[in-house]
Amino acid sequence: MTKAAKKEGVPPSFAAVVGELSRLPGVGEKSAERLAFYLLNQPPSATRSLADALNCLHERVRYCKICHNLAEGDLCRICGMPKRSEAEVVVVEMPQDLMRIEETCDFRGRYHVLGGRFAPLEGIFPDNLNIESLRRRLRSGEVKELILALNPTSEGEATAELLRREFQNLPVRITRLATGLPHGSELGWVSRSALTDAFRYRREA
Amino acid sequence: MTKAAKKEGVPPSFAAVVGELSRLPGVGEKSAERLAFYLLNQPPSATRSLADALNCLHERVRYCKICHNLAEGDLCRICGMPKRSEAEVVVVEMPQDLMRIEETCDFRGRYHVLGGRFAPLEGIFPDNLNIESLRRRLRSGEVKELILALNPTSEGEATAELLRREFQNLPVRITRLATGLPHGSELGWVSRSALTDAFRYRREA
Repeated sequence: MTKAAKKEGVPPSFAAVVGELSRLPGVGEKSAERLAFYLLNQPPSATRSLADALNCLHERVRYCKICHNLAEGDLCRICGMPKRSEAEVVVVEMPQDLMRIEETCDFRGRYHVLGGRFAPLEGIFPDNLNIESLRRRLRSGEVKELILALNPTSEGEATAELLRREFQNLPVRITRLATGLPHGSELGWVSRSALTDAFRYRREA
Repeated sequence: MTKAAKKEGVPPSFAAVVGELSRLPGVGEKSAERLAFYLLNQPPSATRSLADALNCLHERVRYCKICHNLAEGDLCRICGMPKRSEAEVVVVEMPQDLMRIEETCDFRGRYHVLGGRFAPLEGIFPDNLNIESLRRRLRSGEVKELILALNPTSEGEATAELLRREFQNLPVRITRLATGLPHGSELGWVSRSALTDAFRYRREA
């Protein structure tokens, strides 16, 4: 059966929504169709506000000139807050990592988003990361501690090592997030590497 | 932590997209965020064409005046095709059932979409279904066979029984889709009811 014949029962405007939604990652054609029917059965205002939000996304969202987080103006919300301390800067790979930390922690310092991690096999070299702008921030003298909040993966380790070497001569304390047993886990179920870390970095009881 | 504090790291236009996407069924906040980042990293035209398609959805899509399938004008694509025969009308519960049949079958007749199934416990009575318009079509005399393609569920059975009674005095053959073993299944794994149907409706080998 030809593709045209398959689509005989579907009006083009409906098929367009299904087609656009099914391009999103993790959304198959069946789920796209289900979403399109869902939207069709909602008041038109619901679909319109989704469309409006999408239209604003690229128009408004840019990257912070200081820390490379998502922003609407030159500075992101965090860099725009004079209350937050510049003495502690958390380095993350991506803006979503920053969001996770903001959601769960009481950290009141600032951030620096590298925009990725050092992964030479994937063609991501130090020049592709926001390292020069971090160096300028560190040279300003306000930063006392650089907290590396990179993913506990081999690329994250390599990135941490890279940053440690880059900045070891600056008068800045460089720390990394603790690794070990995830809170709430059971010894019998955690990975071997989590257990190895937990032993290696054990602390006074 | 207050909700405002949680959102400090996120520009409002980005949060709006995440919020709108997470209202969709089956899309949690984490997946909504992932989709928003995906869109942000695509060319703006991709997001724009999704927004455009959504904006057209309610503007353009309506229901066919004959069969209640999705349509853009008064008639759906199928009812607008003079080639398709009115002698056989397939009755389905929802437009998505029609789409599935169009995708997989070589059926060249027409459809009638009930807009639901008879489910008194959920407050869906015959008056809530497109039965009167079906009666008018049957009375025109062109329809020779009414093929009930309702879901093989208890509500589907009740709906089929309802239609059979409604139209038993009209000179129209009323048939139902076969039930039995799903093609490609194994006897050891099919449900008891599928096997019961397969015995009850066995045919000559």
